[in-house]
Amino acid sequence: MREIAVFSGGAHPELAADICEHLGVPLRPTRISRFANDCLEVQLQANCRERDVFLIQPIVAPTQENLVELLFMIDAARGASAGRITVVLPHFAYARSDKKDAPRISIGARLVADLLVSAGAHRVLAMTLHSPQVHGFFSVPVDHLHALRELADHFRGEDLSETVVVSPDLGNAKEAAAFARMLGTPVAAGAKQRFHDKVRISAVIGDVTDRDVIVLDDEIAKGSTVIELVDHLHQLKARSIRLVCTHGLFAEDALDRLAALEGVTEIICTNTVPIPIEKRIPQLTVLSVAPALAEAMRRIHNGESVSALFA
Amino acid sequence: MREIAVFSGGAHPELAADICEHLGVPLRPTRISRFANDCLEVQLQANCRERDVFLIQPIVAPTQENLVELLFMIDAARGASAGRITVVLPHFAYARSDKKDAPRISIGARLVADLLVSAGAHRVLAMTLHSPQVHGFFSVPVDHLHALRELADHFRGEDLSETVVVSPDLGNAKEAAAFARMLGTPVAAGAKQRFHDKVRISAVIGDVTDRDVIVLDDEIAKGSTVIELVDHLHQLKARSIRLVCTHGLFAEDALDRLAALEGVTEIICTNTVPIPIEKRIPQLTVLSVAPALAEAMRRIHNGESVSALFA
Amino acid sequence: MREIAVFSGGAHPELAADICEHLGVPLRPTRISRFANDCLEVQLQANCRERDVFLIQPIVAPTQENLVELLFMIDAARGASAGRITVVLPHFAYARSDKKDAPRISIGARLVADLLVSAGAHRVLAMTLHSPQVHGFFSVPVDHLHALRELADHFRGEDLSETVVVSPDLGNAKEAAAFARMLGTPVAAGAKQRFHDKVRISAVIGDVTDRDVIVLDDEIAKGSTVIELVDHLHQLKARSIRLVCTHGLFAEDALDRLAALEGVTEIICTNTVPIPIEKRIPQLTVLSVAPALAEAMRRIHNGESVSALFA
Amino acid sequence: MREIAVFSGGAHPELAADICEHLGVPLRPTRISRFANDCLEVQLQANCRERDVFLIQPIVAPTQENLVELLFMIDAARGASAGRITVVLPHFAYARSDKKDAPRISIGARLVADLLVSAGAHRVLAMTLHSPQVHGFFSVPVDHLHALRELADHFRGEDLSETVVVSPDLGNAKEAAAFARMLGTPVAAGAKQRFHDKVRISAVIGDVTDRDVIVLDDEIAKGSTVIELVDHLHQLKARSIRLVCTHGLFAEDALDRLAALEGVTEIICTNTVPIPIEKRIPQLTVLSVAPALAEAMRRIHNGESVSALFA
Amino acid sequence: MREIAVFSGGAHPELAADICEHLGVPLRPTRISRFANDCLEVQLQANCRERDVFLIQPIVAPTQENLVELLFMIDAARGASAGRITVVLPHFAYARSDKKDAPRISIGARLVADLLVSAGAHRVLAMTLHSPQVHGFFSVPVDHLHALRELADHFRGEDLSETVVVSPDLGNAKEAAAFARMLGTPVAAGAKQRFHDKVRISAVIGDVTDRDVIVLDDEIAKGSTVIELVDHLHQLKARSIRLVCTHGLFAEDALDRLAALEGVTEIICTNTVPIPIEKRIPQLTVLSVAPALAEAMRRIHNGESVSALFA
Amino acid sequence: MREIAVFSGGAHPELAADICEHLGVPLRPTRISRFANDCLEVQLQANCRERDVFLIQPIVAPTQENLVELLFMIDAARGASAGRITVVLPHFAYARSDKKDAPRISIGARLVADLLVSAGAHRVLAMTLHSPQVHGFFSVPVDHLHALRELADHFRGEDLSETVVVSPDLGNAKEAAAFARMLGTPVAAGAKQRFHDKVRISAVIGDVTDRDVIVLDDEIAKGSTVIELVDHLHQLKARSIRLVCTHGLFAEDALDRLAALEGVTEIICTNTVPIPIEKRIPQLTVLSVAPALAEAMRRIHNGESVSALFA
Repeated sequence: MREIAVFSGGAHPELAADICEHLGVPLRPTRISRFANDCLEVQLQANCRERDVFLIQPIVAPTQENLVELLFMIDAARGASAGRITVVLPHFAYARSDKKDAPRISIGARLVADLLVSAGAHRVLAMTLHSPQVHGFFSVPVDHLHALRELADHFRGEDLSETVVVSPDLGNAKEAAAFARMLGTPVAAGAKQRFHDKVRISAVIGDVTDRDVIVLDDEIAKGSTVIELVDHLHQLKARSIRLVCTHGLFAEDALDRLAALEGVTEIICTNTVPIPIEKRIPQLTVLSVAPALAEAMRRIHNGESVSALFA
Repeated sequence: MREIAVFSGGAHPELAADICEHLGVPLRPTRISRFANDCLEVQLQANCRERDVFLIQPIVAPTQENLVELLFMIDAARGASAGRITVVLPHFAYARSDKKDAPRISIGARLVADLLVSAGAHRVLAMTLHSPQVHGFFSVPVDHLHALRELADHFRGEDLSETVVVSPDLGNAKEAAAFARMLGTPVAAGAKQRFHDKVRISAVIGDVTDRDVIVLDDEIAKGSTVIELVDHLHQLKARSIRLVCTHGLFAEDALDRLAALEGVTEIICTNTVPIPIEKRIPQLTVLSVAPALAEAMRRIHNGESVSALFA
Repeated sequence: MREIAVFSGGAHPELAADICEHLGVPLRPTRISRFANDCLEVQLQANCRERDVFLIQPIVAPTQENLVELLFMIDAARGASAGRITVVLPHFAYARSDKKDAPRISIGARLVADLLVSAGAHRVLAMTLHSPQVHGFFSVPVDHLHALRELADHFRGEDLSETVVVSPDLGNAKEAAAFARMLGTPVAAGAKQRFHDKVRISAVIGDVTDRDVIVLDDEIAKGSTVIELVDHLHQLKARSIRLVCTHGLFAEDALDRLAALEGVTEIICTNTVPIPIEKRIPQLTVLSVAPALAEAMRRIHNGESVSALFA
Repeated sequence: MREIAVFSGGAHPELAADICEHLGVPLRPTRISRFANDCLEVQLQANCRERDVFLIQPIVAPTQENLVELLFMIDAARGASAGRITVVLPHFAYARSDKKDAPRISIGARLVADLLVSAGAHRVLAMTLHSPQVHGFFSVPVDHLHALRELADHFRGEDLSETVVVSPDLGNAKEAAAFARMLGTPVAAGAKQRFHDKVRISAVIGDVTDRDVIVLDDEIAKGSTVIELVDHLHQLKARSIRLVCTHGLFAEDALDRLAALEGVTEIICTNTVPIPIEKRIPQLTVLSVAPALAEAMRRIHNGESVSALFA
Repeated sequence: MREIAVFSGGAHPELAADICEHLGVPLRPTRISRFANDCLEVQLQANCRERDVFLIQPIVAPTQENLVELLFMIDAARGASAGRITVVLPHFAYARSDKKDAPRISIGARLVADLLVSAGAHRVLAMTLHSPQVHGFFSVPVDHLHALRELADHFRGEDLSETVVVSPDLGNAKEAAAFARMLGTPVAAGAKQRFHDKVRISAVIGDVTDRDVIVLDDEIAKGSTVIELVDHLHQLKARSIRLVCTHGLFAEDALDRLAALEGVTEIICTNTVPIPIEKRIPQLTVLSVAPALAEAMRRIHNGESVSALFA
Repeated sequence: MREIAVFSGGAHPELAADICEHLGVPLRPTRISRFANDCLEVQLQANCRERDVFLIQPIVAPTQENLVELLFMIDAARGASAGRITVVLPHFAYARSDKKDAPRISIGARLVADLLVSAGAHRVLAMTLHSPQVHGFFSVPVDHLHALRELADHFRGEDLSETVVVSPDLGNAKEAAAFARMLGTPVAAGAKQRFHDKVRISAVIGDVTDRDVIVLDDEIAKGSTVIELVDHLHQLKARSIRLVCTHGLFAEDALDRLAALEGVTEIICTNTVPIPIEKRIPQLTVLSVAPALAEAMRRIHNGESVSALFA
């Protein structure tokens, strides 16, 4: 089989190094230069010819820099005669731009999907895309992982008999229900409704009173929805609250605001998005998705079923 | 401006005729032949050269026949030097196949979108796609209408002070909220939850007791969700129930089963999908979307804003 | 080399099973579901990743169902990261739609060829396309087999010294001449001419009197041409008549009508097209092309010359 | 409507000038230069911007020079922002390469069709393509004319009561039958058969004895088939023979050899292919297709039906 | 003709406003939003349908932000059914990345050209691309302007009898020669040579002693080459020095350093690149290319020759 | 690994044979036929299926014949299921057409690059393209070699202490500087300037007096620039002159004219372009690039770094 060659962009080299360690292959060096006119030049510094090339780059802030850098990496790999180019997107921020809810805007997720393919991507490995339909925006094969197993492992060994998993949003409660099944707990969900053009949580469906709550969301950015939900949980006399998400974006001071909420004892996310040291408060637990991504990459490289992995 | 030329496939010629009447243009004849080997031949029987061609065909059962017929119409128009080809999809059944929820299946809506473009479609006029993300599956411009105004007009003049609009699904309640705003009523919604791999309605959020209920959904096929919701509404002592949807698919005996539900006084849908005479029971009201589609086509033809129409 | 994975659509699973037996590989299961709205969902139920995937589906009646099913299979294989997708078309009904003989019709064979490629087909294995030019409609490599060797084997061991091969059509007599060379017989042909917009056989070129005639055509659907030719052969006092074709479509009651023709002792076709048990009259002999298709697939898989096979 | 701009390559400027005269528009100048390294440079010497550009170039010998020159003209027009580029192919020599009758050859007609589109052609106006399937090799709209009306006009006013139209080939006799209908004469045809890998005329179907024969073929290059047919016609005691074709390629000394055949009184072709003055023997009549091509171009430009023209 | 609609991205709205004033059309508003996850959303706030849309955005620092913003604008215009999308690139920073001078790097200019087309650009209006070959990187028509006339106008009326135009680089002296012809002066050039992997000016070809020098370059970023040239000019006893360029990038403190050079009396550039107020030192003259770009846009819109404009 | 299969077009079979000898693989036969209508048919006469196919054809005079022949070879290889098609272009004449320096001309190098890809080329191996930007015209990976090492080897062992390498053109002196570094000599260059629309050499930068001069250019066609440079070198009292280039096109009598120049003792080129025996004068030395091309092809085939080869 063609040899594997893994490169990282500048967005999250720690995760890339972590993945390579699990894969047992070296992380090949990438040189990223910036000219006086702010143009990028990206050099993949190892032979790509006929190799099975993986380019790891979450699309996170600074989003445009990371996106263009990734496009240059893909094009460089193509021009260097890569045998196959798999883009590994631990996080894909533009997945939220998945519909045209105002006239004359771009459906950003589709545009970016097309740009990645136009630059030369042959396939994509993504994790917990904001909506499952985003998969269909790509014209190349996508392997779409989720991190529920990693998140569930965190609670292994605990007594969860009084615990309930709560989704902030009934519409996307499917993932929370799957998570609850893994933990052997019931599931509940906040019901969002629109009042005067503002979407608010109007109720919590399911029993949370006197329960230990695990709030599960795909991502937390500003945290407004979660804050609102926690307020409802208090009114309903939940016993304790833990916040769990795959993508810990934590815009601005979100982490501090969440940690300061009464009753919130722990915030758990994965390392799909880099979290700077100075933001890493004691209440925060960051789980690694590197083993899962590495295993998926190994299977992609060897032509083994990836869906089997997450069955 | 280039002259307009409107053709209908075999799926719903009545709607096409209705649209043309509102547009004030003739419906051009289409000849659809079938050879001994079951192959289709479609002839557009009027000059298409440099014309602004509209091809009206809902993708409804028999779905494959109607889809292939449409593909042949598009290709014929392209080969006949049409100036622009707009596919009018009053209903797009494959929109429900919008995600890959099992390994090694096709995302049908994306595939069909690509086939339409591959055959030569330049743009699409669609109505109430099952999920708004399906818009992003098309690589050509899409004008995406809804029929809320038509449905709301049906209730004009009534005293709706005791009425509430109910969405069977909180996740998609955005449309119901917009509809309620049009009618000046509050909104409620069924909250669906997953029990043992089966999705069931577990609660109704919002006040429905002693109210006249208007249930709004995008489409009704087998009607199972609605039947379940009606059961909840009875338990909550709703006063009366009317069922409203854009796409009245009414698979098998769904219409009869819905009409037989206690308290259901009327079923209202539009004519995006053809409903055979023998299914048209007295409780059924079918509203025409022809004026809306005709107006959108007129604006598309004249280069006027379509979003302005539905602002 | 990448492993082979063979799937069959619903059009002709018997042939697919027959091919797999000759190849010595399992026929992988395909799940074909139909939703309430008549939409298809096709699942390839075995790992396709990096596999050399072959999808066997003759395009025969119900033509549109089988075509769309095949498109979904191709797209599913692509999305499942198939290494290469070869579409095996034992029969391609749309090959007859190979020219634009009326204004504003589609050239169906070209459109369908484009749709197959648009869905993701990398190559095609076809058998006896109605005209050799149809090969050029595909933008991907085509291996184009014929079944003459299989048909000739049927006559091996017979005394053919008084036999003549007759093509119903002089224009396409090339195949009949090749067949006659295999059998060591002379060749003759019906000469078609157009009278008042109807094409009729006007003469038979070559000596058929007192001869055992083998009529060879690429396909027999309604059988009108053959019936006309048999009439001429009688007038010319042919001794016996056998009818041979690759694609036995036999529309409606064609088989019974052909078998009832005076002097016709046997009808021979191959199994490129499924023939239901109830149509299988005693005079009909169905030869299997499975060994030929299997050998071609083996060579395609191994990168051996396919043209050498049929030299 | 956008203004028309007509350019000619170097293959047949006389025809282009003739067409422009009938269209009533100037033939725009084209500069064709050749560098020391035998590379071409083609400049279209009039504004193309948003114009309806027609590029007239038969693909005739020197075939490669004329083809590449045409590709450069198309690309230049595209780069110069032409509104629409129609390639006018009065003759398309590569149309004869329409099937793959040997392993590892190119289907030349399809390749050239793709090259023309790749260079930027939006549509094609062709005349009497060697086989009607070649139409399907183009992925852009083709208007496919024939010159039968022009050829028939040549015989107008003659007493044709004893005349018969003869096609050299039964397989392609459709055109001869149409021509005979125009002239009000019967039709006959040479029947070709393959003897020992050589195709020979084996019979003439239809009555030619004591008749004035008009032989009609699509093109005459070396003339071997026609010479063979004339030999048969003599044996069958035809009274007189005239040779008619659309494309008068007349390779090497073909014209002289045909004119020297006993009984051949006239050779009639059109000017789709340039015939040098020194080849223009007295027996040769060259009819102009310029009026027909000009009328088709006028209709294409105005968006009028072209099929109506040749109904 | 279709109506014109001009939008500006965030890179240089002043230039866009200036252009619109010369065109006599309003600059349509663009809304550029940034989400919490640093994703952009761009809304074109005027009807684009069938309009002749021009999107003005120099690709300048912050380069990646401006590039992605432009890609979103193009895609939004396409989705909004723009009739034609012309991207106006007053400056294209990535044009400098025009060759692969190290292994496994991207040719940035080609990649970005492909991205613009992939997003939906139909044509490009560029100004003074760094090398003329970059034109060939675009697969869509490019109108390539230069600003020599604007720059020359600045010197109109002066006595230039003792003046010489000097190009810093002999290799690209063509533009300087053209500029000298406009001014009626001789031309000279710095000759660059490579010493130990560093490119240095080694000589000045042409007479500059006791002359008033106008140094002309396409762009000045860090200004190192110009500083080196000025040093040579001093040694050669040039009388006075003025620095002229089209693209005044002036990275960091380049402007101050240039202005501080002995003998440099004026620095002249155009407004293709925005220059912040605080950088605008007294020695700097900024000429407007808005009239030239406006006139080119007018001609593009009206289908008039653009090359004629700059003949 | 897939087996290699090398074919040569008709442009330069000697070079192809030479390359194959160095590769240790047979040169597979190609049959090139020409029909009566001057159409080409090219047959690759060895199995291409899944092979790693290399097609060797310099684009040299007769340029159009050689180009179209190559396009047919590529398409034939594609249709024959080649695993990968690498076009080997020892010389690419159209590389000189790399910019649009007149209105409404084609950028020939880009067009031809697109045609090669459209016909099916997967990658290109080129040698000393006229400008490095031409690399960016290809949308497929290009390995771009130069022949400096081969040319330098010719001078190995000589005393070069009094030698200087001279580039006729300062703009392209980079290659000469690299060559001088290999030889351990200084470098000089002719400075070209434009006088009245004619480009002339105006000076020689660097010391050449009393030196042995090696003039290095990428190609010599008519030789006018070199003749002019030699004249300058004489005026500057160069001691001896040798002319060196990669591509020895030598249009018409250029070789004789160059050899007749006073002081020119040797002309050295490589065999990228075929030089007929009758042109091979005693002063001409032709070095073979076959070893370099063979080594690059070996590395391409084996997936080894090609850039490493020329580091």
